[in-house]
Amino acid sequence: MRKTFLYLFLGCFTMVSAQNEPVDYVNPFIGTTNYGTTNPGAMCPQSFMSVTPFNVMGSDLNKRDKDTGWWSTPYSFDNKYFTGYAHVNLSGVGCPDMSSLLLMPTSGDMIVDYRKYGSEYKDETASPGYYSNILTKYNIKTEVSATPRVGIARFTFPKGQANILLNLGEGLTNESGAMVRRVSDTEIEGTKLLGTFCYTASQAVFPIYFVMRINKAPKSVGYWKLQRPGETWEKEWNKDAGTYKLYTKYNREIAGDDVGAYFTFDAQEGESIEVQMGVSFVSIENARLNLNTEQPKADFEAVHKAARKSWNDDLSRILVEGGTKDQKTVFYTGLYHALVHPNILQDVNGDYPAMESSEIKTTKENRYTVFSLWDTYRNVHQLMTLVYPERQIQMMHTMIDMYKEHGWLPKWELYGRESYTMEGDPSIPVIVDAWFKGLKDFDVNTAYEAMYKSATLPSKENLMRPDNDDYMKLGFVPLRGEFDNSVSHALEYYIADWNLARFAEALGKKEDAKLFYKRSLGYKHYYDKESGAFRPLLPDGTFLTPFNPAQGMNFEPNPGFHEGSAWNYTFAVPHDIAGLAKLMGGDKKFVDKLQMVFDKEYFDVTNEPDINYPHFFSNFKGEEWRTQKIVKQLLNDHFTNTPGGLPGNDDTGTLSTWAVFNMMGLYPECPGRPDYTLVTPTFDKITIKLNPNYYKSDKVVIEAVKPMDAANANFIGSLRIDGKVHDSFRITHEELTGAKEIKYLLKPIAGK
Amino acid sequence: MRKTFLYLFLGCFTMVSAQNEPVDYVNPFIGTTNYGTTNPGAMCPQSFMSVTPFNVMGSDLNKRDKDTGWWSTPYSFDNKYFTGYAHVNLSGVGCPDMSSLLLMPTSGDMIVDYRKYGSEYKDETASPGYYSNILTKYNIKTEVSATPRVGIARFTFPKGQANILLNLGEGLTNESGAMVRRVSDTEIEGTKLLGTFCYTASQAVFPIYFVMRINKAPKSVGYWKLQRPGETWEKEWNKDAGTYKLYTKYNREIAGDDVGAYFTFDAQEGESIEVQMGVSFVSIENARLNLNTEQPKADFEAVHKAARKSWNDDLSRILVEGGTKDQKTVFYTGLYHALVHPNILQDVNGDYPAMESSEIKTTKENRYTVFSLWDTYRNVHQLMTLVYPERQIQMMHTMIDMYKEHGWLPKWELYGRESYTMEGDPSIPVIVDAWFKGLKDFDVNTAYEAMYKSATLPSKENLMRPDNDDYMKLGFVPLRGEFDNSVSHALEYYIADWNLARFAEALGKKEDAKLFYKRSLGYKHYYDKESGAFRPLLPDGTFLTPFNPAQGMNFEPNPGFHEGSAWNYTFAVPHDIAGLAKLMGGDKKFVDKLQMVFDKEYFDVTNEPDINYPHFFSNFKGEEWRTQKIVKQLLNDHFTNTPGGLPGNDDTGTLSTWAVFNMMGLYPECPGRPDYTLVTPTFDKITIKLNPNYYKSDKVVIEAVKPMDAANANFIGSLRIDGKVHDSFRITHEELTGAKEIKYLLKPIAGK
Repeated sequence: MRKTFLYLFLGCFTMVSAQNEPVDYVNPFIGTTNYGTTNPGAMCPQSFMSVTPFNVMGSDLNKRDKDTGWWSTPYSFDNKYFTGYAHVNLSGVGCPDMSSLLLMPTSGDMIVDYRKYGSEYKDETASPGYYSNILTKYNIKTEVSATPRVGIARFTFPKGQANILLNLGEGLTNESGAMVRRVSDTEIEGTKLLGTFCYTASQAVFPIYFVMRINKAPKSVGYWKLQRPGETWEKEWNKDAGTYKLYTKYNREIAGDDVGAYFTFDAQEGESIEVQMGVSFVSIENARLNLNTEQPKADFEAVHKAARKSWNDDLSRILVEGGTKDQKTVFYTGLYHALVHPNILQDVNGDYPAMESSEIKTTKENRYTVFSLWDTYRNVHQLMTLVYPERQIQMMHTMIDMYKEHGWLPKWELYGRESYTMEGDPSIPVIVDAWFKGLKDFDVNTAYEAMYKSATLPSKENLMRPDNDDYMKLGFVPLRGEFDNSVSHALEYYIADWNLARFAEALGKKEDAKLFYKRSLGYKHYYDKESGAFRPLLPDGTFLTPFNPAQGMNFEPNPGFHEGSAWNYTFAVPHDIAGLAKLMGGDKKFVDKLQMVFDKEYFDVTNEPDINYPHFFSNFKGEEWRTQKIVKQLLNDHFTNTPGGLPGNDDTGTLSTWAVFNMMGLYPECPGRPDYTLVTPTFDKITIKLNPNYYKSDKVVIEAVKPMDAANANFIGSLRIDGKVHDSFRITHEELTGAKEIKYLLKPIAGK
Repeated sequence: MRKTFLYLFLGCFTMVSAQNEPVDYVNPFIGTTNYGTTNPGAMCPQSFMSVTPFNVMGSDLNKRDKDTGWWSTPYSFDNKYFTGYAHVNLSGVGCPDMSSLLLMPTSGDMIVDYRKYGSEYKDETASPGYYSNILTKYNIKTEVSATPRVGIARFTFPKGQANILLNLGEGLTNESGAMVRRVSDTEIEGTKLLGTFCYTASQAVFPIYFVMRINKAPKSVGYWKLQRPGETWEKEWNKDAGTYKLYTKYNREIAGDDVGAYFTFDAQEGESIEVQMGVSFVSIENARLNLNTEQPKADFEAVHKAARKSWNDDLSRILVEGGTKDQKTVFYTGLYHALVHPNILQDVNGDYPAMESSEIKTTKENRYTVFSLWDTYRNVHQLMTLVYPERQIQMMHTMIDMYKEHGWLPKWELYGRESYTMEGDPSIPVIVDAWFKGLKDFDVNTAYEAMYKSATLPSKENLMRPDNDDYMKLGFVPLRGEFDNSVSHALEYYIADWNLARFAEALGKKEDAKLFYKRSLGYKHYYDKESGAFRPLLPDGTFLTPFNPAQGMNFEPNPGFHEGSAWNYTFAVPHDIAGLAKLMGGDKKFVDKLQMVFDKEYFDVTNEPDINYPHFFSNFKGEEWRTQKIVKQLLNDHFTNTPGGLPGNDDTGTLSTWAVFNMMGLYPECPGRPDYTLVTPTFDKITIKLNPNYYKSDKVVIEAVKPMDAANANFIGSLRIDGKVHDSFRITHEELTGAKEIKYLLKPIAGK
């Protein structure tokens, strides 16, 4: 029996007031514990400068320490011991890098050992483009903000000696070695080496250049450098051996593993000193140009105001109404996190370091960096394409330029270096997905050439697909090393090849299309009827034995699978759910098994290969309520307005974007397929501003319409697009971006 | 009874043949063991570039190791393990510094750890401007030469992989930290910190800049850097932790404590590769300018030829005839050592770093550096004044410019930094001595102002005389710390003040002259009748008790005296030997006591305060034979044509100059007094070319005329200057430089 609900159509439920702009809802502390690895630092959207409190070294007061284990974020909400502000940071990554140029204010006697100069803090506060605390040891108020390439700090001191330290020896990066040079009493410049991302990318190193300027003439200036310990006998003559030696008179450049610069002042009570940090990845000259252009003078208030505005402008591309304050906070913080990476790389004059090269090139648009593509190909670029298409196209230009410079599309690119972290060929779905959504203003032939190259080159020459010989010959990747992640590799190649097949077909390359499409179905090799799961194959084509599909939970090593169990991968063929269902014995068996994965808690909301599992139910008529129910449950359980409010590593915004899409009522289930699976919107009304250069509509308004007698209606009854009934739980990108108004008619009861 | 000898006057005994030019007599290995601390490297006269084999680290094969004790020279003749060529070195100093930019060729697999890449060597040979050996581990012939500011190496490889390494992590200096940047496949540039001379001069640090160029395109290039050891757990992921990591792809700048650059080649059998190293103390740009100007292309042969010629030109200012080959070798090697320091500091364009400043200044004449003045005021500058007056005047200009830049005349200046090593006020006698010898073309008023300042400022403000309060008040320096060298300090002030008094008088400053002359006699306070020696005084004016005048031999610590016993200081008032003799109870008592010092072996030929003791006998009529006898004995015993042929630390040429003067038959007994004490010439004929811009004669020929029946005539009978009998065992500077010919009529018997 079909129950009919009465819906009340209202034009607008709430108004976004001046006091409650999108920027007001961002809580930068979300994700700063529970391994979210975000940080509460100050930055502008998709810019390389961020200024972040650094509290992961130097004291047992901290729960998390960068030097006692693998640690990938400059800040942990659980920690207490602040040792300065790190400049240029990564957000939501799983490997340590960046977070250097540690700027620290102290008062009283100057100490240059971070184990001693660090301080606990109180009154911590953060908002987009702003962070502040009070250092309790020194009674110093610290505040930071940023323009896209230049940080600024304001330190308010008590009366007496004030000190400002720049520590170039420490940082989150595993690289060391820096050089600093005094330009004047109030300006220093230098460079530091960064890189060795994930430890394994030992050749992926690159320099950061900086110019630091202080707006008050110091009483004294100097450097420090940790001295070699020397032999025992040296202590007799060299009092500095093994200690941080102060260089009080030397004022040309100093280089070393552990060096720093200091400035001391006589401060009045409550006196503020502002410190600007211009950065470039091209040269010291460009760091200065960035500084002079973006912040010609130290003006903390102006910088803060502009940063806040730039965030609000970006966040306002999506306006949400209704929902709780916490839900809005989760949403806008998610969008905020989605707008951290990829970020621009070029200086104000357009200069940037070419990929894997010492060449400096110049661009007239944005050159992007920090492509964590194994993560972001799944949803971040889809969000960019929908809401910020003018940026997505430039990211694609960047990716294709990287191919031109380096011979390969990016995989996990970090500041011009390819770290080859994670597996697969993720640039393909990023580009193909956007192309099918109409973003075609790029060098299509070169893009195809790049994709074809990585799909077809033999292993020996193939930096993208190191196991391509096996893959091309066998149709799968056999297990050749105990933990070689062979199945995970192959699954990535299948989705990439499916995208490539579709792209080839669209470009009229029929033979290629056939070849790659056939390849994309190779996942079937892995299906093991006995366990009902994907199971690693040996080179002779037999399955690995013994085999437990539940092995691999919680980062337990697992043959064939990267960070997960077979259950986290067995459904990971979003491009052929129908085929997989057939393989599994039919739709019901598929649905039951997928439900089992959730029921038995094999599902891992923090690991990307299964994050679209909930949406797969919607491929089966009558089962869409499962998608809606599970997504709502996951949002409720794992995405909260707390420091632990991300379920795990944000993966440069991928988890956050999962929440953003799902809270808007739609999710890009299959990369490369230009459509969205419908889920129940979290908000009553969502206005997505669309870029009319790319889309038919200039905005689309999504309304979640609940029956008058069912305020808690959590399921989608039906959809009306511009008043017309939409008879599907999927909506194409074209439909979405061509509509003015989409009404979700919700109902409180699952099923038909 | 007076015996009469028959003298045979011959115009010329021998001719200097083409095969036997002065440069042929230099043995750069003299002083390379027995703590002479010279080195056999290639250089040009008084230039900053020297290229020296570095064999004092990395292996137990070496007897002397820079890292197992205080060691002040890059090379020891006793050692066996060669780890490269050091660029810019000190010769004859007692503290470690400089000797960095270690250039090493290897063959076969490339290894960047000097503990492993070093090699034993054979077929070692050295001559002015040239050094060569064969590295037995690699079968590589290495050769080095230099222009004044640019080194050149020629490495001849066996067939196969050839490697060229530049190690910037090690060196003799106690400072660390370097930066290197690839300019092209065949050129690198960078900087390294040097300084902390004698360990104690912890703020006396300065950068060296370099540009290195190779004349063959390499097969591969890269850097290395010693990685932090990291915590134990890091080894699991980071295979490079604690090791020398190779940077094979990175090609911008790299900085760190222990970094280097490598180049590999495919070499043909016997293929030579030349490496040029341009250096500057101003900037990388200037290092390149020096390189491009002095060696526009790599041409080892041309550089070697020019270096050799420049040495021969300088050494030929004095031509000696007669004597044995070994004696000529000792003489010309001594002159060679005297022409190492002070050396020029300025680049080819005249740029140099101002004293204790970051300012770069420009000069049209030479700017000198490496002023070890406590040593060199005693004879090296006297040698410069006599034979190279056009350089001595420029050294004086440098010293006065240092005062203008820094507020103080130099004491122990090293590359623009004052290390305040040793005691006293040694610039005063250097300038006054030259002034009285007619070198007056300098800013006399400023010089006097500088001298007056250090002589009169109270201790607190006095960087030159830290105990000036006591000295000015008491007339002596009392012992206030166990090993404060108080007597040594005061003795230096007395000779300085005597010089200053004479200078003041000559300038018509009668009151000053009186004051400083009175001060200069303050040594009498220290005379202890009981011991017959100078004895430390306590602040209350009483003598230190107990007291043993023989304490302090062989670097044994000794209250009141710096590196020596009271006997090494008790006669150290060359400006008032007559007064001292009176104090000691008359001439005979003085002579007997001085003879006792020699007889009991209290005399130390290696320590400067007593090196003019032998000449003091000549102040007493009839005792001059003692001077002649002892000097001859000392020359025979301690100055030989062997690696241990210097009796101790050469002290930037001071010991060598002692030999040079004495072998010529004259010695400047008292700094500031323009005369020479006569000793028996070692050679039959000595021609000193004089600079006619400064002196009346353009050359003076000294002839040692022996009676026909007494070839072994070792004592001076009488002197004839231009044919006229000279009735003294002393000759004034004016007499010497005004003469054409001075004949020493020798006799075999001492005494009258």
